[in-house]
Amino acid sequence: MNNIDEIHQTVTGWIREAADHIRSEINEQLSVKVKTTPNDLVTNLDFETEKFIVSKIHATFPTHKIVSEEGFGDDVTDMSDSIWFIDPIDGTLNFVKQKENFCIMLAYYENGIGKLGYIYDVMKDKFYHVIRGEGAYCNNKQIKPILKRGLSEGLTALNSKLVSQHQNNAIKNILSNTLGLRLYGSAGIEAIEVISSRTVAYVASNLKPWDFAAANIFAEEMNAKLTDFNNQPIDLLKPCKIIIANQKAHEEIINIFKQS
Amino acid sequence: MNNIDEIHQTVTGWIREAADHIRSEINEQLSVKVKTTPNDLVTNLDFETEKFIVSKIHATFPTHKIVSEEGFGDDVTDMSDSIWFIDPIDGTLNFVKQKENFCIMLAYYENGIGKLGYIYDVMKDKFYHVIRGEGAYCNNKQIKPILKRGLSEGLTALNSKLVSQHQNNAIKNILSNTLGLRLYGSAGIEAIEVISSRTVAYVASNLKPWDFAAANIFAEEMNAKLTDFNNQPIDLLKPCKIIIANQKAHEEIINIFKQS
Repeated sequence: MNNIDEIHQTVTGWIREAADHIRSEINEQLSVKVKTTPNDLVTNLDFETEKFIVSKIHATFPTHKIVSEEGFGDDVTDMSDSIWFIDPIDGTLNFVKQKENFCIMLAYYENGIGKLGYIYDVMKDKFYHVIRGEGAYCNNKQIKPILKRGLSEGLTALNSKLVSQHQNNAIKNILSNTLGLRLYGSAGIEAIEVISSRTVAYVASNLKPWDFAAANIFAEEMNAKLTDFNNQPIDLLKPCKIIIANQKAHEEIINIFKQS
Repeated sequence: MNNIDEIHQTVTGWIREAADHIRSEINEQLSVKVKTTPNDLVTNLDFETEKFIVSKIHATFPTHKIVSEEGFGDDVTDMSDSIWFIDPIDGTLNFVKQKENFCIMLAYYENGIGKLGYIYDVMKDKFYHVIRGEGAYCNNKQIKPILKRGLSEGLTALNSKLVSQHQNNAIKNILSNTLGLRLYGSAGIEAIEVISSRTVAYVASNLKPWDFAAANIFAEEMNAKLTDFNNQPIDLLKPCKIIIANQKAHEEIINIFKQS
């Protein structure tokens, strides 16, 4: 299977099947384990979902490599060839405590070029996908061009850690410049809010590759910007602090970081 | 019309009709005006929705008084007799910038006793209502008893102002004790998240009566606590700082405020 549209159809089926399984099990007793800290959780459904998608990729594309959250992927050291990024349940804390506001994320790169990206808000049944060069979609409806709004013209999202820890001057300046702060607790959902122009920016510390690999493809396709706090391109194989924003808000935030 | 179930049926019809109007107009050009600050907005649909509900109340209950956000209500100075509280669009900033994440709120009190409360998340079509002594419901399904979880066992929501302004020690302590911060930008939606056990608490500065009048009835019915920061009952006719939380989280937050 080489045709990108054919791959897209196949992958869409996997994600929908995985989501059906999550929805059917979400009200059963979950097995919840703490990973690093009390707010870094993993459940049996994170494992099952990742295993399922990994097995599908292995069976369909035996030569492809996989970078994934829960350890069923490969040890990938460079971006050559075909690489998949999987976050089986992004926003696991929401998943456990709210049973909503989480998403399945998948991204496909060829030699470092993002080809396909998926962010599926499972409980709201909002399926976002992007195909390089063919646009970004929500439930198969093309997403409108991103609005170039500055911080003072819209809402800005941060991750919990950036707000809770001692706030440096840059974060304080972002907060005092934006119309309002929003915080949903899932990097995938926060990214799609920016792509859909419902927020102007999302700023987050310490994300992992599977947290931003799909968002990166949406950002490229929609002419949004996704960089680290120093305006450098992100390294898809390393943890990273990220800003995803429309171009106007991104420039303002980069200037705030430079001046703070 | 005196029977409370009959009033409930009638009011439900008004709110659904108002919501249909909002949904039909939301993608038209809105007339947006700044009230006090750039993030305090009002639109033609706030006005139209409030006028519509006020006219229905006046026609159906000519002796009842109305406390409402956009100025079509009465000058109410005490809680005697029958009083309605209306917030036609709670979360107007979300309404304008996101076209979702806002709600219609309505509350009905008799001699200071909350009888009926409504929080309708219009775009998600989640209709929450409470009838004193008969329980609280989401889309007519009874809401499960609230989970008594402490700050360290769940997610906590704050309003944007509490996070953005200079944070006092109490807010810092809440942030360092909770599993994670969430911020949705609508007092009604934040309250219903607590009532539905998806967050353990919502702490907000400077809310107005129509922001918490419905939440107060949900809290009473569900054995949650709604007080000011000093653990005092709220005054339904004055702006107020509020905590709405399950009993365990509420006690922890009150202790944090006492000690900070």
